Amino acid sequence: MEQNFGLEVLGIREPGGNIISEKIRELLLDAANQGITSRTEALLYAAARSQVVEEVISPALQAGKIVLADRYMDSTIAYQGYGRGLDINFLQELNQLCTGGLKPDLTLLLDLGSEEAWPRRQKEIPDRLEKEGLTFQEKVRKGYLFLAEQEKERIKVLDARQEPEKVLQLAIRWLDEILMLHRE
Amino acid sequence: MEQNFGLEVLGIREPGGNIISEKIRELLLDAANQGITSRTEALLYAAARSQVVEEVISPALQAGKIVLADRYMDSTIAYQGYGRGLDINFLQELNQLCTGGLKPDLTLLLDLGSEEAWPRRQKEIPDRLEKEGLTFQEKVRKGYLFLAEQEKERIKVLDARQEPEKVLQLAIRWLDEILMLHRE
Repeated sequence: MEQNFGLEVLGIREPGGNIISEKIRELLLDAANQGITSRTEALLYAAARSQVVEEVISPALQAGKIVLADRYMDSTIAYQGYGRGLDINFLQELNQLCTGGLKPDLTLLLDLGSEEAWPRRQKEIPDRLEKEGLTFQEKVRKGYLFLAEQEKERIKVLDARQEPEKVLQLAIRWLDEILMLHRE
Repeated sequence: MEQNFGLEVLGIREPGGNIISEKIRELLLDAANQGITSRTEALLYAAARSQVVEEVISPALQAGKIVLADRYMDSTIAYQGYGRGLDINFLQELNQLCTGGLKPDLTLLLDLGSEEAWPRRQKEIPDRLEKEGLTFQEKVRKGYLFLAEQEKERIKVLDARQEPEKVLQLAIRWLDEILMLHRE
């Protein structure tokens, strides 16, 4: 049986991943833009996602590549829904509009309590979302965990309190499993 | 009968009208950003509109002011739908999401054929949308006229080939009528 381990992988971050989306990212994370309303914030993330889906993700998938994205549609539900309190139906509709319905095959959720996560930040100056503080971060976390509960098949929760090597091992296990499924 | 002619009027342009929306406007009109897909473009206009509705239009209406906007939701249908060919249902849903359903009481459509309109431009260098050329402009015009046909009560078409004074007179007539209706 032939097994192709020479898989082509494309890593992206979101919002970002191309020129337009990086410009939108700047708008979103600039701590000077405190006036952005929650609805506008959700629409800007949707715009950045739309561009990265059409310009980067879809072409890569069509070329047979694996796309590994740092954040995607679940973040909209967690941050703007659970964090900001926007209507979840509104956000689901928006996700549908901006992705054309393109969902990940597998989502890895690295879970860590906000208080433990905070000291791990690598930046000195918090960005606009980090400025919201721990209560906000904890709401966002609950949102992600709720989604994971709802979509157990797709979203796998990894306990990120463990050593990095252990977390990596778990991630590789889930990746192996999904790759096996796709080879069948 | 008392008539209050000391109406407070707030004029805005769209996209724009506040700091965030002006930044989004820059992104949209910058001729360097040719890579923006039609879907992303629609979402960015929606983000700018969302912000101007929540930050500027709704508070002004609540304070009893009249808001006069240079472009609003119909432009999304005309430009991104008829001009770019995006799905009209998608755009109507997006308009609903970004405005929360807030519609104008009256819309004045100043209509002029693209060939006659072109020499009237005030800028030397065309922006990203103007660069699309006359065929695109003509499609957009058809979109607006189609909307006017569908919503005769709200959208009034003014023949903009006439002298500016005459166009102004017609505009004032429609404004008077809508103000009378609201006073009743």
